[in-house]
Amino acid sequence: MTAPAPKKVVLAYSGGLDTSIILKWLQTEYGCEVVTFTADLGQGEELEPARAKAELLGIRSENIHIEDLREEFVRDFVFPMFRANAVYEGLYLLGTSIARPLIAKRLAEIAAETGADAVAHGATGKGNDQVRFELGVAALNPALKVIAPWRLWDLTSRTKLLEFAEANQIPIAKDKRGEAPFSVDANLLHTSSEGKVLENPADEPPAYVWQRTVDPEEAPNTPEMVEIGFECGDAVSVNGERLSPAALLAKLNELGGKHGVGRLDLVENRFVGMKSRGAYETPGGTILLEAHRGIEQITLDAGAGHLKDSIMPRYAELIYNGFWFSPEREMLQALIDKSQEHVGGTVRVKLFKGSVRTVARWSDHSLYSEKHVTFEEDAGAYDQKDAEGFIRLNALRLRLVAVRNARAKG
Amino acid sequence: MTAPAPKKVVLAYSGGLDTSIILKWLQTEYGCEVVTFTADLGQGEELEPARAKAELLGIRSENIHIEDLREEFVRDFVFPMFRANAVYEGLYLLGTSIARPLIAKRLAEIAAETGADAVAHGATGKGNDQVRFELGVAALNPALKVIAPWRLWDLTSRTKLLEFAEANQIPIAKDKRGEAPFSVDANLLHTSSEGKVLENPADEPPAYVWQRTVDPEEAPNTPEMVEIGFECGDAVSVNGERLSPAALLAKLNELGGKHGVGRLDLVENRFVGMKSRGAYETPGGTILLEAHRGIEQITLDAGAGHLKDSIMPRYAELIYNGFWFSPEREMLQALIDKSQEHVGGTVRVKLFKGSVRTVARWSDHSLYSEKHVTFEEDAGAYDQKDAEGFIRLNALRLRLVAVRNARAKG
Amino acid sequence: MTAPAPKKVVLAYSGGLDTSIILKWLQTEYGCEVVTFTADLGQGEELEPARAKAELLGIRSENIHIEDLREEFVRDFVFPMFRANAVYEGLYLLGTSIARPLIAKRLAEIAAETGADAVAHGATGKGNDQVRFELGVAALNPALKVIAPWRLWDLTSRTKLLEFAEANQIPIAKDKRGEAPFSVDANLLHTSSEGKVLENPADEPPAYVWQRTVDPEEAPNTPEMVEIGFECGDAVSVNGERLSPAALLAKLNELGGKHGVGRLDLVENRFVGMKSRGAYETPGGTILLEAHRGIEQITLDAGAGHLKDSIMPRYAELIYNGFWFSPEREMLQALIDKSQEHVGGTVRVKLFKGSVRTVARWSDHSLYSEKHVTFEEDAGAYDQKDAEGFIRLNALRLRLVAVRNARAKG
Amino acid sequence: MTAPAPKKVVLAYSGGLDTSIILKWLQTEYGCEVVTFTADLGQGEELEPARAKAELLGIRSENIHIEDLREEFVRDFVFPMFRANAVYEGLYLLGTSIARPLIAKRLAEIAAETGADAVAHGATGKGNDQVRFELGVAALNPALKVIAPWRLWDLTSRTKLLEFAEANQIPIAKDKRGEAPFSVDANLLHTSSEGKVLENPADEPPAYVWQRTVDPEEAPNTPEMVEIGFECGDAVSVNGERLSPAALLAKLNELGGKHGVGRLDLVENRFVGMKSRGAYETPGGTILLEAHRGIEQITLDAGAGHLKDSIMPRYAELIYNGFWFSPEREMLQALIDKSQEHVGGTVRVKLFKGSVRTVARWSDHSLYSEKHVTFEEDAGAYDQKDAEGFIRLNALRLRLVAVRNARAKG
Repeated sequence: MTAPAPKKVVLAYSGGLDTSIILKWLQTEYGCEVVTFTADLGQGEELEPARAKAELLGIRSENIHIEDLREEFVRDFVFPMFRANAVYEGLYLLGTSIARPLIAKRLAEIAAETGADAVAHGATGKGNDQVRFELGVAALNPALKVIAPWRLWDLTSRTKLLEFAEANQIPIAKDKRGEAPFSVDANLLHTSSEGKVLENPADEPPAYVWQRTVDPEEAPNTPEMVEIGFECGDAVSVNGERLSPAALLAKLNELGGKHGVGRLDLVENRFVGMKSRGAYETPGGTILLEAHRGIEQITLDAGAGHLKDSIMPRYAELIYNGFWFSPEREMLQALIDKSQEHVGGTVRVKLFKGSVRTVARWSDHSLYSEKHVTFEEDAGAYDQKDAEGFIRLNALRLRLVAVRNARAKG
Repeated sequence: MTAPAPKKVVLAYSGGLDTSIILKWLQTEYGCEVVTFTADLGQGEELEPARAKAELLGIRSENIHIEDLREEFVRDFVFPMFRANAVYEGLYLLGTSIARPLIAKRLAEIAAETGADAVAHGATGKGNDQVRFELGVAALNPALKVIAPWRLWDLTSRTKLLEFAEANQIPIAKDKRGEAPFSVDANLLHTSSEGKVLENPADEPPAYVWQRTVDPEEAPNTPEMVEIGFECGDAVSVNGERLSPAALLAKLNELGGKHGVGRLDLVENRFVGMKSRGAYETPGGTILLEAHRGIEQITLDAGAGHLKDSIMPRYAELIYNGFWFSPEREMLQALIDKSQEHVGGTVRVKLFKGSVRTVARWSDHSLYSEKHVTFEEDAGAYDQKDAEGFIRLNALRLRLVAVRNARAKG
Repeated sequence: MTAPAPKKVVLAYSGGLDTSIILKWLQTEYGCEVVTFTADLGQGEELEPARAKAELLGIRSENIHIEDLREEFVRDFVFPMFRANAVYEGLYLLGTSIARPLIAKRLAEIAAETGADAVAHGATGKGNDQVRFELGVAALNPALKVIAPWRLWDLTSRTKLLEFAEANQIPIAKDKRGEAPFSVDANLLHTSSEGKVLENPADEPPAYVWQRTVDPEEAPNTPEMVEIGFECGDAVSVNGERLSPAALLAKLNELGGKHGVGRLDLVENRFVGMKSRGAYETPGGTILLEAHRGIEQITLDAGAGHLKDSIMPRYAELIYNGFWFSPEREMLQALIDKSQEHVGGTVRVKLFKGSVRTVARWSDHSLYSEKHVTFEEDAGAYDQKDAEGFIRLNALRLRLVAVRNARAKG
Repeated sequence: MTAPAPKKVVLAYSGGLDTSIILKWLQTEYGCEVVTFTADLGQGEELEPARAKAELLGIRSENIHIEDLREEFVRDFVFPMFRANAVYEGLYLLGTSIARPLIAKRLAEIAAETGADAVAHGATGKGNDQVRFELGVAALNPALKVIAPWRLWDLTSRTKLLEFAEANQIPIAKDKRGEAPFSVDANLLHTSSEGKVLENPADEPPAYVWQRTVDPEEAPNTPEMVEIGFECGDAVSVNGERLSPAALLAKLNELGGKHGVGRLDLVENRFVGMKSRGAYETPGGTILLEAHRGIEQITLDAGAGHLKDSIMPRYAELIYNGFWFSPEREMLQALIDKSQEHVGGTVRVKLFKGSVRTVARWSDHSLYSEKHVTFEEDAGAYDQKDAEGFIRLNALRLRLVAVRNARAKG
């Protein structure tokens, strides 16, 4: 493509070595103005050093955007997704996938605010994140160019990257000289690790990969009970204390991490066509999923629940593939949200040595009817004779098929 | 219904008090000949006492059918279901549901062999099991009458049942005099408990409910690794030892039970319209599900896997609702089985204090391509530039929508 | 059931012989007060005679409810359903199914207003309508009893019915003395005929069955073009004239009927387990479906459209089975409605000799981009080289499967 | 990509101007040996001229492959697809989509037979056909290179193409000097036209676009009845005459064409992201779809039929998008084929002025039970009282929801 060079680029900037190199490369390659965007999504790193580094690379202070997005992240992305009990390929809680649309949204918005004509990100050409960033930007600001240096440049080895950094006076932390043994992404919902020592799925992940959860073997020998309150499908309190979305998820992370909850070793199918192996830690999210299922058990109608279950894989796939800002995700969200009006009450879960299990749940909105289900006399709530007609009409077509098939054989 | 009384009835007979009462009631009510059918599905009880009791109640020896169905149960019912990773309402492994069709099948077959015109079962009118038995019988032998005494008689209280037993010289074990604190169903796949002390879902199940698994808190302090071999989607070996289906599941039950794996406290939606609460123990099945997912991760194509995931809830619902012998279950099974041809290899799982986790998997049929996914140079296996076109065409419709929506607003 | 007799019953009353017999039977059987409810859903019959007949049978005037529900019917039931392009079993436009929930709703509401403790309807025990009425009533007013005389009484032959009518001074129109050759249901959306002469699906329906559409062979020899305007998924105008929902559907019925559009001879699967054969006429609805698809073609995104298509069969099945007032139908409606925000514009269809075909469509909300699709130079709107990467990444997993399968065989 | 030039290329060669230019361009650009592959899929053109033209362009006779694939096309591609009642976006019968995999298959096979290292096709970079060819080749012979000259060369205008042809002594038919007014694809299943005069979806297609069907207005004034026999879901006879798959489809094409059946004017969503408008003629296929639905109406169980309907959109999308040779299409095919075992019998359809309608159907495998559905006395086949229990249990959850919702509001 010989498209005209971008004039002003908003870069998703972590302050780390790689995105600092990208920053410099953008300046060098295009002679363009760079606006940096650094977000706190709960990854557990200080953001202010990113400001200093950006300034060092010549970014003017009005072009440096540093934002705490933790509440928006949990309230508008994590919670809506958990209403669906979304799990990708049976196991993955979508911790990285759900953070990307928010970054794309802010990139597009900051571009609009600052008059930039392009955005840039540091995702490689092999992964899902490039797709998620770029689909999000396309959906929100279709005129923006997207620059993905990893797909463009010739800095294809660690050595070349370091040479470029040195040649451009980009400071290199000592521990970045060697190769990292694996790659990490983190936010308030999860930490993922992949690559290098994790690349062979026949080898158990080494213990040092896990960063956010205690080894279940080292976790407390005594279980801990936690009560989580829900309203309209969202968690609102922990052990009776009402908390904001981000504070609540942080609290669950603390509890889950302490008990070794939420580790996952997975080989998954990337949207770009290959399988990849990741080690995921989602302590609070794992508790949240279990508890949400627990409260739905007593407050969600069977028809509603089964419909949700049946569309969930597609919903999860859309998020995984980067289609958060698509019409179909929004349609599915409307369906899911419609189901959650009465999903409120309290769930007690038990945390112990790596596991979380619902042990009790109660709600003013409960659909559970002890009167109907009881083994005792039910005072006429349910007429057992109704079951006969119910079964006979459900069986009618099976009978007709059986008679036909026998006739066909005979 | 003033249908003519049955002449010869095959009764699903456990040898316990309730089905002994039913046996007598059938004789008394209809003056009919009764054929008893007692199956070993791995429930862990001796079957020969059932013979003695049937004889005591006047059943001729040629009318007493006692069968060991464990291998058929696991091979033809449990394993096909696990190929689908079937889970009802996100959590339930369908341990009771999957045993009922086999009993229905043998009831229908024995009726054909013995010239009986009816079958009878001891399921109540409030539960799912009546549906499963009766739909199965209808699909396999549509001319048979089905007699469900719990929906017909007036023995509606414990007192009346005991009076009937005494009046008819049916022996009553001492521990059956009082009310059981909950009701139990067991087979090689699971043990379920429900009713009475379990009826309030806000109360944690008492410890004595759990019968088949060690309390995770009492489980060994050291994890245990287990390697499970698969061929065409079915488990064939444990720790290198090739085992028959039933022997394999028994082995996994032993391992899982020891480590407290597979406990579930659930409120579920019954097919007959109400919610009910159960305490389930599925030690071996829980391991099997995890391991099967583990081997699929490296051997199943993304398109195949996502299709399976999307139809799984419907498949599980069909089994739960009793439609095992329906055309649509068989169609879904054809789809699932088609996907499993290359699902073979070995998975290593770690059992510890109530949890089971895949930690490694390998296979001659692996689709995992380290060459494609590697962070290292990939020798041209993957051209990162391809991602640009991939993303741009995936984004095209989102861009057109964004432009249209902006125009519509403007 | 020895439930206490109803005291006051709201009866869905057409004024015809059958529901007059039911009215009398209710009075006789239960000694209860009867409230009649007669609705104009566009069936094309005068309603006032029903008032006179009810009075004749002793109903007090304040207990006679006669209502014109045509606008509500089309606006709140027909139109929402057509947003989904709902078709049952590939062909049936659900003309009867969609009218029943509205009748159930008014029955439940009138019962609440008049303090009635029961409702009654004239649907038989073999059909779907009993289910639709009773599920609707259960969902809207769960305490109400429902009385379905056809399932209760012993008036099981035409002769017995006429005897009952005569014995009770119920006037019998001359043409009701003999057996009707088939049974008819009609409303503003359709007319259905079934039973008797239609019962053998190997016999073509006799010409006299069709009542609402001209025989295509007798239809005009010249096609007629009709332009239908849409806003947010609903039709709002015909040939430039803005019309209310009911007036619009009536207009399309007139046009469709004239050109023989909308006849359907179908064998369908009833919810109660058997197949049945019906002859349906849906002139306006058939035009509406074609036109709605036509406008969606240019205004609905591919992802949105494919999602709608994939859930449509389930949505149609819910309506057919009587679950209009279920949580899951409302969830699906939320999904569908979300998709229709930009479904506006105009479609030109051609009516001719039994067929309707879209020939042109245009919209300010169009997503069709001539610039992208053109065979001419597209001025850079689309880079054909993008397709290579798109295809290569879509092909990647297929390649990996092919290599694996070859290896497995080899 | 600086991939090594191909040495031997199998070209999908029609003998027309465009693919002749491609042939020459391949020789010129890569200096490679070209193998031509020309297939008769029923497009209605002589194939032998393609041989002469290939020879004229220097292709050795052993490198010229001309094949009659009509029977394979209908038997192995068209018929399996029609078992599913596959329709893309509610209307399109996939006439082009289903032909591409067969061409891809033969390209891959001929490449293997002749030792070629690449295949080439004449599809443009904007359409779906490139995807279908290339995914097919990737799935069947993953090592092959694919060359798509329209994405590579600079012959981007009609003028440049003609100049290239003249410069290379490629004969240009007189009528190819000017621009064709639209682009055509044809095979035994359908003829599609798109582009140029069809590009504005607000303009009705001009009459000269339609090539294969009589204008309904010019069609016979008398309807024609046709009886189609089915076995296992496939049509096997027309009016009692047993025919091979291709002969049968040809016969239906003749009948449909004569009566103006199967015209479609559609705006559809391409896989590559934009909408496009096509004019399709599928005379025989339209009859086949109607008749197949007709025979399924009496022979397919409700559960089976509804499952088929629910997966059909996905199946159609897979075919449209080019994934015929994917694991998931094969899984869905297994499901569909499983359902067709008893789909046999005869359907009578009526052709008239552009429409086809089922008017009668009968089968030895019928599930239709007049005895169950009849309005007359049914001799105990169906107990209407069963409906009460059936409805009450289906209503139970709706009642519980209603009570809960009222409580929540109160």
